[in-house]
Amino acid sequence: MNVLVLNCGSSSIKYQLLDMAGEPTLLAKGLVEKIGLPVGSFTHKPEGKDKYVVEEPIADHTAGIDLILKALVDPKHGVIKALTDINAVGHRVAHGGEFFAKSARVDEDAKKKIAACCELAPLHNPANLKGIETMEKLLPGVPQVAVFDTSFHQTLPKEAYIYGLPYKYYEDYRIRRYGFHGTSHKFVAEKACKILGWNIEEKKIITCHLGNGSSITAINKGKSVDTSMGFTPNAGVIMGTRTGDLDLGALLYICEKEGLNAAQANDLVNKKSGLQGVSEVSSDCRDLQAAAESGNDKARLALDILAYDVKKYVGSYAAALNGADLIVFTGGIGENDSEVREQVCTNMEYMGIHFDVAANKGVRGQDKVLSTTDSKVIVMSITTDEELVIATDTMNLVK
Amino acid sequence: MNVLVLNCGSSSIKYQLLDMAGEPTLLAKGLVEKIGLPVGSFTHKPEGKDKYVVEEPIADHTAGIDLILKALVDPKHGVIKALTDINAVGHRVAHGGEFFAKSARVDEDAKKKIAACCELAPLHNPANLKGIETMEKLLPGVPQVAVFDTSFHQTLPKEAYIYGLPYKYYEDYRIRRYGFHGTSHKFVAEKACKILGWNIEEKKIITCHLGNGSSITAINKGKSVDTSMGFTPNAGVIMGTRTGDLDLGALLYICEKEGLNAAQANDLVNKKSGLQGVSEVSSDCRDLQAAAESGNDKARLALDILAYDVKKYVGSYAAALNGADLIVFTGGIGENDSEVREQVCTNMEYMGIHFDVAANKGVRGQDKVLSTTDSKVIVMSITTDEELVIATDTMNLVK
Repeated sequence: MNVLVLNCGSSSIKYQLLDMAGEPTLLAKGLVEKIGLPVGSFTHKPEGKDKYVVEEPIADHTAGIDLILKALVDPKHGVIKALTDINAVGHRVAHGGEFFAKSARVDEDAKKKIAACCELAPLHNPANLKGIETMEKLLPGVPQVAVFDTSFHQTLPKEAYIYGLPYKYYEDYRIRRYGFHGTSHKFVAEKACKILGWNIEEKKIITCHLGNGSSITAINKGKSVDTSMGFTPNAGVIMGTRTGDLDLGALLYICEKEGLNAAQANDLVNKKSGLQGVSEVSSDCRDLQAAAESGNDKARLALDILAYDVKKYVGSYAAALNGADLIVFTGGIGENDSEVREQVCTNMEYMGIHFDVAANKGVRGQDKVLSTTDSKVIVMSITTDEELVIATDTMNLVK
Repeated sequence: MNVLVLNCGSSSIKYQLLDMAGEPTLLAKGLVEKIGLPVGSFTHKPEGKDKYVVEEPIADHTAGIDLILKALVDPKHGVIKALTDINAVGHRVAHGGEFFAKSARVDEDAKKKIAACCELAPLHNPANLKGIETMEKLLPGVPQVAVFDTSFHQTLPKEAYIYGLPYKYYEDYRIRRYGFHGTSHKFVAEKACKILGWNIEEKKIITCHLGNGSSITAINKGKSVDTSMGFTPNAGVIMGTRTGDLDLGALLYICEKEGLNAAQANDLVNKKSGLQGVSEVSSDCRDLQAAAESGNDKARLALDILAYDVKKYVGSYAAALNGADLIVFTGGIGENDSEVREQVCTNMEYMGIHFDVAANKGVRGQDKVLSTTDSKVIVMSITTDEELVIATDTMNLVK
C-alpha cells in the first residue's frame, strides 16, 4: 500500500511517498517552493535515483501538486508506474480546533470543519484545504486522511487549556490552549516506550520537541495533559524567531512606544524575536554555539535562555505529573544538540535525573539513552518522523 | 525611634506609624482614599483608641498627608505629641528599575532615578514621588527612605530576566523581567528561616505570595534568582483580575477581532480577566469557593486554574534551584486559603513534599509548618508584613 504524504504550506508543498505494505519504506520525497512567485522551484528525490530539480513559474497549489504527481510516474525520475499505484493520501493539517481529537478520513463534514478552523491557523489551514481539494480533483476516488498538529493535545484537562481571560472569549472565539507538534510528541513518546519495552499506559513522560519551533509536552498514560505552545505556536520556550512566553505588558508597552498594530506586533514576536532577536546573530543553535565560542555574549545568552526555559518547563510538567519516568529530546535541536540537552538535564538530581554527560556528548540523530543506569528518570534522544505518523494514521484509517 | 510608613497610590495613601525603638510596635494606621474626587475619605485608627473617620473633599496628596499628620498629633485621636516625634519616613516605591538593588536614603539623585522609572510604573511611581516631595515640605529635615517592590529581584541572572525579544528593546527601553512583591518575598523567607533556626545562606526557598496580585519567587542562598511577575505585574499565575501568563497570539487575536488598542488591551488583561474573568462570579477566592460548593463550574474552574498555575511555578522553580528546602505561602490567599495550599502541595511527593492535609485545614493568618515531620521539603504558611520591612529598612538606613 503506497501512501502519499502531503504538507501544504502557504507557498510550499512538502511530500513523501511511502510504501506501507511491510516495514514502511520511503520511495520518494521532495519539495515545491515559491508557489505564485515569478520563479518557483521543484525538487524531487526518488530513492536510489538522482535528484531532479526544476525552476519555473508554479502558479498555484494545483500546478505544484501536478508537478509532484508527474514526477512520481515519470519514466526517468518516477518510482511508481501509474497514479493508480497511490492508494491513499495523508495530509498534515495544522489546526483541528476542538473538532478533531484524532486523525480523520476526509469527507464533506471534515472539510467543513477544517475550513472552520482557518481563522485559528490563517497561514496553514487554507493551504491544507487547498491540497485536499486539489487531490480530490487529480486523484478522484483515492481516500484521503487529515492528520492534525493539534489533535493529540485534545486530552488536556480544562485547567490546563482555559486561559485567565474573560470566559466569553473561549465561548465566542474558542480561544484556549491548543498546542502543536502533536504528531511528533505522540510518535517519540511511543517510540521510546517501544525501545524501553514499556507500556505507555503506565508511564509519565515529558517530551521536548526542540527545533526552529519548540514545544514541551506532559504525557500521562499516553495522553497529553499539558503542552507549552498555546492558542498559537508563539507560547512556551524561546524559539528560532519566536519570543516564547512573554509578559503581555511588555508587548503592549512596545506597541505603544512604536505605534505597532496587531499585525505588526504578530510579526515582531513571531518572526523577529527569539534566539535571532536576542543574539542578533542567528536563529540557529549551531551558529550561536560557534559565535559563543568566539566570545559573543549575546549568542551565549540566547543559548542559556533556551536551556533555562526548557529546564523550567520540564520542572513544571514534573509537578503537573508528580514526577516523570522518561524525558525525551527530539526535533532538530533536541536530536542533535548535546550542549542544550546537557544544560537542561544537569543539576536536576532533585527529581531523580542522573544525566550521563559522557554518553550524551556528540549524539546526533540517534535513538539513545542519555541517563546513567542508576537514574530514576530515563533521558533519551529519539528521532522524530512526522511523515511516518501521517502515513501510518492514513493507512489505518483507509484499510 | 518612630517611623512613618507611607504607601501612596494614584488616589490613595496607606500609612502606619511604628515605634521601632525595641520590638516594633504599631502606634497608628490608616487610609486616605478618593483623593481628587468630590468626596474623599480618611480613616485613622490609633492603637487602643477609637477609629476616626472623615468624609470630605481631599484635593491632592498634600492635603491627604496633611490630614494624616494632623491626626497623628491630634489631642484626641493622636498618638504622638508633636511632628518632631516622627524620626523618619519610609516610602513604598513601586519601581526602582535597574537603579536600586536595595532600599535607599532619599536625596536628589534618588529622586531623579525614581522619576526616571515613572514610565515603567506610570500609575504608582508618580504618586510615590509626590508623597516624597510632600513630606520634604511638611516635615523638612526628617530623613526619608525609599523601599522598592522590585529591588529584591535585581539579583536575577540574565537568562531569567532577558526576554526572547530583539535585544534592542532591553537596551532602548529597559524591557526585562523586574518582578514585584520583593519586600514580601524577602520578609517571609527570612521569617521562616528564623522560625526554623536555619541559615538562609544555605537554603533553597520558593515563596508564593498569593493575594489579589500573586507572584512566586525562587530564592537561592537568600537571593532572588527568578520570579513569576515580569516587566509588569501581569505575568505569572492567574490573579484576581489579571490573566497571568497568556499566549501573545491570543491577545493579538482579540485585539484584531474587537479593534482594541494597547490601552484597551491593558485594561482587559489587567482589570477584567483572571479569576473574575474566568468565573464570571468574583475575583475573591472565598466567593469562588462558596460558588463552587453551590455547583458553579466556572468558579470551580477558576480555583483549579489558580492552584494548577501555582503548582507549575513551584515545579519550574524547583528545577531552577535543583530542588527546594522550603516552600512558603503568604499573602491574602496564601495565608488564609487552606484549600489552595492543599491543591498545590498534594501529589508533589516526587520532589520530596509530604503535605500534612490535617495540619493545614483551617489555618488562617498563622506562621505554621504544614508538611509532615518526614517531609524532605518543609511547607509553611507565614504572615507577611510589608510595612514592617519598610520601617526596618528605614530605621537601618537613617540611624
